[in-house]
Amino acid sequence: MSKTLGLGLAGFGTVGTGVWETLQRNAELISDRSEVRVDIKRIAVRDMSKSRPEGAPTELFTTDWQEVVADDSVDIVVELIGGTTTAFDIVAAALKAKKPVVTGNKALLAERGQELFALSHEMNTPIHFEAAVAGGIPIIKTVQDSFVGNRIQSMVGIINGTSNYILERMTDAGLGYEEALTEAQQLGYAEADPTLDVNGWDAAHKAILLATLAYGFIIDPEKVYVRGIERVRGIDIDFAKRLGFVVKLLCVVHEHPDGTIELRTQPSFIPQSHVLSSVNGVFNAVAVRGDAAGESLFYGRGAGKDPTASSVVADIVEAARGEAHDGSHRGFLPYQDSGHVMAIEDTETPYYVRFDVTDETGVIAKIAAVLADAGIGIAGTHSPVNAEEPDADFVDMVFQLHTCKFGLLKETLKKIEALNCVNSRPVVFRIESLG
Amino acid sequence: MSKTLGLGLAGFGTVGTGVWETLQRNAELISDRSEVRVDIKRIAVRDMSKSRPEGAPTELFTTDWQEVVADDSVDIVVELIGGTTTAFDIVAAALKAKKPVVTGNKALLAERGQELFALSHEMNTPIHFEAAVAGGIPIIKTVQDSFVGNRIQSMVGIINGTSNYILERMTDAGLGYEEALTEAQQLGYAEADPTLDVNGWDAAHKAILLATLAYGFIIDPEKVYVRGIERVRGIDIDFAKRLGFVVKLLCVVHEHPDGTIELRTQPSFIPQSHVLSSVNGVFNAVAVRGDAAGESLFYGRGAGKDPTASSVVADIVEAARGEAHDGSHRGFLPYQDSGHVMAIEDTETPYYVRFDVTDETGVIAKIAAVLADAGIGIAGTHSPVNAEEPDADFVDMVFQLHTCKFGLLKETLKKIEALNCVNSRPVVFRIESLG
Repeated sequence: MSKTLGLGLAGFGTVGTGVWETLQRNAELISDRSEVRVDIKRIAVRDMSKSRPEGAPTELFTTDWQEVVADDSVDIVVELIGGTTTAFDIVAAALKAKKPVVTGNKALLAERGQELFALSHEMNTPIHFEAAVAGGIPIIKTVQDSFVGNRIQSMVGIINGTSNYILERMTDAGLGYEEALTEAQQLGYAEADPTLDVNGWDAAHKAILLATLAYGFIIDPEKVYVRGIERVRGIDIDFAKRLGFVVKLLCVVHEHPDGTIELRTQPSFIPQSHVLSSVNGVFNAVAVRGDAAGESLFYGRGAGKDPTASSVVADIVEAARGEAHDGSHRGFLPYQDSGHVMAIEDTETPYYVRFDVTDETGVIAKIAAVLADAGIGIAGTHSPVNAEEPDADFVDMVFQLHTCKFGLLKETLKKIEALNCVNSRPVVFRIESLG
Repeated sequence: MSKTLGLGLAGFGTVGTGVWETLQRNAELISDRSEVRVDIKRIAVRDMSKSRPEGAPTELFTTDWQEVVADDSVDIVVELIGGTTTAFDIVAAALKAKKPVVTGNKALLAERGQELFALSHEMNTPIHFEAAVAGGIPIIKTVQDSFVGNRIQSMVGIINGTSNYILERMTDAGLGYEEALTEAQQLGYAEADPTLDVNGWDAAHKAILLATLAYGFIIDPEKVYVRGIERVRGIDIDFAKRLGFVVKLLCVVHEHPDGTIELRTQPSFIPQSHVLSSVNGVFNAVAVRGDAAGESLFYGRGAGKDPTASSVVADIVEAARGEAHDGSHRGFLPYQDSGHVMAIEDTETPYYVRFDVTDETGVIAKIAAVLADAGIGIAGTHSPVNAEEPDADFVDMVFQLHTCKFGLLKETLKKIEALNCVNSRPVVFRIESLG
């Protein structure tokens, strides 16, 4: 009964190996369930001499990705090499050859989605990308298909496991940032070059993809506010704890009543009582609120060989079913030419602000006066319980502020920074209410 | 661009109204996203004179469901009347007319799925049933499509909101069962006839559907172990709390290494530290473990007008896309003629057992001796902290038992029940370890 389709893999690293293993291990189950068979026909690798797992199908290897795309026995192209240059060429070539694409490349789609989705549409050939966001969690399919009848009111996610692990270790074990990063690298939770993970861009790319699906327009990454965890310090984590919060690298996507989309990624304070606060280690979670479905949460392994392979294989089967039948290509297509991403200055939340001040009488009064002038309310002020250097001339002073626009806060903080008693740039965290 | 498909609704109660409202409210969004339009053409109702929401399309009403199925403008039939008799006739008639079916009727599919899935396959016409399990949570699509590459190792769910609400109120507010049920009815969380909710069968029907999807064979409901919450008492909830657990109506589906499927629904003790313990109120959650994806959790609103409508609308769009294109019908088909559901006697967990004993020296020794004879280990014994009637001749005595087969436990408890010092049938709860 079942039709067999040929796969071409570009990339046989961690995820590629996982895909090959999963397709081997569960071959029968997959064809029983889906009534299609998939068979790897050709694999492009960078380095033929690299050591591979036992039994790896090295006879299918080539160093020329064009051979893979051009191979007549290849019906579906799976791009797993990462990056946005060669990967772009592979995906584009496959679409032009009318071969459906499966990819987990969030950077590629977030940075160059406009061209690729347009090409996908022109060629009537889908791009599947479940593995691009939150590894083994089927969040793409959920937003795209299961919530198709919903106006998506918000999506709030912890979708970078590396950052989440580092923040957890800083919180629970009191490690410093560098120490926690080194540990994460030793455990394989962070790459040798962790830049995109810790600077927030890996998470932001995923959030951009989710927002594109939810709101139907291509989002320019340059318009998106992104901050990473590199400058998070133990003192702020400790203050967070004391005030009933925990620090998480959070992606927030929120549709305002006027249709404007708020979209930002940064380390934020979230209430310890919120379910997202217990998403630990390398796990990911995305809370989605739809106008019909209400609040939902999707939780699971956000990275790693097997969870990512799980999503790649699901996409391969979907692509294969589409090919086995006729014409039902369900690739994503932006349905709005443009949309409005809210300027970060216009977004508003409550805030935590820490000032490094001279330890003298009247400091709080001076800062409070500037805040009052700006119309920013103070929810509370706090100083450290145990100052490390009790005799120091400088002290950390925390202000918890009521909701105001970020732009107003920035201007006001500049004025406060200019005060003689304030010794360095204030440290700001948003306090997320999470509805 | 977009093709328009006609819908026939059978049923315009709570969910039917929600589907109509959602399709109205988000019509443009849905057609933008899916490139299909759906339009309600005909609605079968039981009672023409019943009052309806303002603007309801009463001009489409008929009391004859056959008119709906036969209507030439109806491409897709949506069954929302519930029950397993007329609903069966409607679904069967639609399939015979090659009209795809969308239904949220878990009882129908769990009880009569064999005939309906066979007919669906014969007619090459799909049945979509996302709304049948866990309301607005896309768990059907997740298991069927997103986890297609996974051997499903286990699914553990809280999938009856009524029971969950009642147990929560008994736990947090100390209400008795009857009191909590009445409250749930007043709040609209329980129906006037709550039988299927509180006796466990609503949850069991959903678990049967999930297991059928995961393992590919039709499961005979008669082979499934189901206990409801009607006999849960405050004393056991209090003991659970004291011992670090919480009582939840839990569906457990588990594939053993030999391919046998464990499938049971009952109120169980789960650790307070497990994320499922914090699923409160009418929320549902399903934890799924796949051999590739690892641990995942899906959480959301398990019932109610809008969440259920969200899933019905997602299915309508999927059916419409299938119809708009050609032949890509992705209905579920059991792929195994049969499978093996483990006899409940062979399942094993640790247990909590409460005995009503005569308050005299030597009782624990007598009970412990019988357990020892059977080779059942005792993890601890507990008596109430504050006996309500300190002078009573009878007292409750709790034994926490190590893992053993349920069959052995039952036999052994019969022997203990025969002791003179034991005054009534022991109360048993499983203690779920939840990996």
